[in-house]
Amino acid sequence: MKAILKNMTAAVQVDKADYKVREESLRLRLLSLQKELATSNRAILILMNGVEGSGKGETTRKLLEWLDARGVETNAFWTAQGEEAEHPPLWRFWQMLPARGRIGIYFGSWYTQPIIDRAFKNIGKEEFERQLGEIRNLEEMLIAEGVILIKFWMYLSLDAQKAIAKAKKAKAKTRWRISSLARKFARKRKRFQKVDLEVLSQTHTTIAPWTIIDAASEKSRELAAGEALVEKLRQALHPSGAVHLQISPRFKTAPRNYIADLNQNKKINDDEYKEQLEILTAKAAALADKMSTSKKSLALVFEGPDAAGKGGAIRRVIAGMDPRHYRVIGIAAPTDEEKARPYLWRFWRNTPRDGKLHIFDRSWYGRVLVERIEKFCTENEWQRAYGEINDFELALTEAGVTVRKFYLATTQDEQLARFKDREITPYKQYKLTEEDWRNRDKWHAYETAACDMFANTSTAYAPWILVEANNKNHARIKVMRAVVDALEEALR
Amino acid sequence: MKAILKNMTAAVQVDKADYKVREESLRLRLLSLQKELATSNRAILILMNGVEGSGKGETTRKLLEWLDARGVETNAFWTAQGEEAEHPPLWRFWQMLPARGRIGIYFGSWYTQPIIDRAFKNIGKEEFERQLGEIRNLEEMLIAEGVILIKFWMYLSLDAQKAIAKAKKAKAKTRWRISSLARKFARKRKRFQKVDLEVLSQTHTTIAPWTIIDAASEKSRELAAGEALVEKLRQALHPSGAVHLQISPRFKTAPRNYIADLNQNKKINDDEYKEQLEILTAKAAALADKMSTSKKSLALVFEGPDAAGKGGAIRRVIAGMDPRHYRVIGIAAPTDEEKARPYLWRFWRNTPRDGKLHIFDRSWYGRVLVERIEKFCTENEWQRAYGEINDFELALTEAGVTVRKFYLATTQDEQLARFKDREITPYKQYKLTEEDWRNRDKWHAYETAACDMFANTSTAYAPWILVEANNKNHARIKVMRAVVDALEEALR
Repeated sequence: MKAILKNMTAAVQVDKADYKVREESLRLRLLSLQKELATSNRAILILMNGVEGSGKGETTRKLLEWLDARGVETNAFWTAQGEEAEHPPLWRFWQMLPARGRIGIYFGSWYTQPIIDRAFKNIGKEEFERQLGEIRNLEEMLIAEGVILIKFWMYLSLDAQKAIAKAKKAKAKTRWRISSLARKFARKRKRFQKVDLEVLSQTHTTIAPWTIIDAASEKSRELAAGEALVEKLRQALHPSGAVHLQISPRFKTAPRNYIADLNQNKKINDDEYKEQLEILTAKAAALADKMSTSKKSLALVFEGPDAAGKGGAIRRVIAGMDPRHYRVIGIAAPTDEEKARPYLWRFWRNTPRDGKLHIFDRSWYGRVLVERIEKFCTENEWQRAYGEINDFELALTEAGVTVRKFYLATTQDEQLARFKDREITPYKQYKLTEEDWRNRDKWHAYETAACDMFANTSTAYAPWILVEANNKNHARIKVMRAVVDALEEALR
Repeated sequence: MKAILKNMTAAVQVDKADYKVREESLRLRLLSLQKELATSNRAILILMNGVEGSGKGETTRKLLEWLDARGVETNAFWTAQGEEAEHPPLWRFWQMLPARGRIGIYFGSWYTQPIIDRAFKNIGKEEFERQLGEIRNLEEMLIAEGVILIKFWMYLSLDAQKAIAKAKKAKAKTRWRISSLARKFARKRKRFQKVDLEVLSQTHTTIAPWTIIDAASEKSRELAAGEALVEKLRQALHPSGAVHLQISPRFKTAPRNYIADLNQNKKINDDEYKEQLEILTAKAAALADKMSTSKKSLALVFEGPDAAGKGGAIRRVIAGMDPRHYRVIGIAAPTDEEKARPYLWRFWRNTPRDGKLHIFDRSWYGRVLVERIEKFCTENEWQRAYGEINDFELALTEAGVTVRKFYLATTQDEQLARFKDREITPYKQYKLTEEDWRNRDKWHAYETAACDMFANTSTAYAPWILVEANNKNHARIKVMRAVVDALEEALR
């Protein structure tokens, strides 16, 4: 027996009377914990895994009978289809994340596709392990964000699987249930078992351990699942001080002030600007048009202090484009549905599907900029955000989304001049708020945070492009060139 | 010329200098109105309609250049695919409704499919007119709910269309743009023109008039669209008292107290109950299983006073079912994303896709029950809600969703007895709140509202089923029977 199976909750004999007593007690505890959960800031996510015939459906049916079903959302994930298939594999799991206070049950989780792909050898060992690594990071992050993750594995030995399949076959009336797909899987039973155990071993972490249940007995597995749920909930809602796990972020301080190093004297005169802009606008539009019918997409991030020219640069990027091909997403305060979920959820909601260009006017980097500076999140939260963001952008990149990040930097003097200009120009007044002046007082804190951000999130696959923005012509042309390059790379 | 075209904004000659001046002025006004909109309780929905080559894309590109693109969402709707195709035709338009303060632009609106279907004679005159009637009701409702609806029709005469197509063909580099679909449409130009004018005439209502623009000249049509947008916004945000349109609801008072007429002495003893329940549970589960692979779905609504047994009845309905096939939706206070849109939006979000059973524990009827009684909405709002709800349920029914509505009624004495029981039974205490006692004081108001609801929304396609609920056994069996019937009807 593989070492991992030593963690399994064994099947026990439960007679009818015994079951009834234990069920009643379980139900009372579950309902009371669910009620507590409803007003807490935690969500529960249950992953229901296991081979065909291991009773995933029946066990879930029981859990729903015991719980208040209104607080539970069950989601079945089959092969990604339609819009799902036009996003990264993790996208659909993000969409369905339960809000705080609620319970989500996933049938077919992020483990399913890697297991199938590996069992049928569609992917090699290396890619398989990369995907498992991605999953470990995801789970770590969800847990750090307050999600109570329960990973059930309903275990059946090969002999038990064969016995169940045989019994099912014999029962004429359930015969139609055995699809050709199931038969295809059944022939690979041994191979799947090997891959399953590999997955269990590699993803049974201290932070996100598996709850492996011997699924051979129906009553026993139901009670085991119920008890495990109670235990997890109890621990999460009433943590004893000792078991507090916290991940140490791999955060490094920026070695130097990249922004101060910029040469803000770069200029482009108006004639040259007009000429180049016209060429680049047409190029970008043609490329976006071409991309719109491809499997590729592009995500552009714009960050930088107020009045650095983000809006103006974005207007030039989209000027020639068909509005059906892009979307500009302005990031303001999160809605309450967004606040009820891990912070990356609201960006996962807005990732581009195949063919689209999404432009983020401010972005997920708010976590390590404004939220860090204004102390909207804890030090641990913003420090671990760098790694989480790198993972997020990698997931996008792997799925065919090219990611480019622009930081428009002006000097402090230039910002002041622009603020003053906004005060006196009628159609610019709407852009200037009290908050802009307040943010200005924190100039150096923002600069430090921005430099730490470059040091920790400038990756080969999603680089930061620092734009000297004192001269608007120069800034816009630099952005347009990079956008054209990014579109060309996306289509390569 | 058809009478409807008399409303068209004619094309005018605009030279370059003139255009520039007018564009600048337009942009200032648009930006300032958009800023006002952002903090108002109104949303703008722009429908961009017109034949191929009429410049819908270019005009929208201009609007986005003038506006702050962060406040605008552009959505292109092609043929419904994937999940979209598993919902009523209107579903995808509901999903994308802009929130208050924002602007949504739809390319391909609810007019597109009826026009295509009629042009190719996939549907007859009667069905076509029924669909247009449905659209008129929808638009009326959106407007009553605070949506500023702007229906643009970019008009091109047949000669102009031919000239544009010819020019396009000549331009080798845009040749690939002419898809086989477009060619198929081009052959039907005359037929489309006829259907288009028919649609314009039939849906040019006082409340939701068309803005028809002569699209022959590019500059002229852009300015016309911009000016129309400014005008609509100005009117909506600064209404002059005189133009306030309000729809008179077709509301009738209930002729009698249906609830008092119920025979609350109906009883089923425990043995009979157990026996029947077992049979019905198995039947319902088998039917739900069958439905899960069909194109049909079922929406069940449960209403009734506190402690009438809605939760218990729902638990019996789902007891035997595979949790992947149903969802129980508990309706509580709306989230802020929901509050930012017409009240039916949060129910459209939760309609079942093909194969699913959705159970609503309280529902859209809150509008004419709690919201009416607690004065959360105006009299006009709840009075027009009956018709809106009937339309909503009809749209579901037409799309293969069977709708059944249960009202569980107890007597006032029985409710009191149950409240007292809840106070002393540990695992029931969580169900009883202060609010329940407060609601009890309004018993008669609720009864009146419920009876008005039956009188106004019991339709042949979505009937109310009044359940005598003083005896729980009787109530649950009656519900189970009706659910089995509904599933059978759905699968017929």
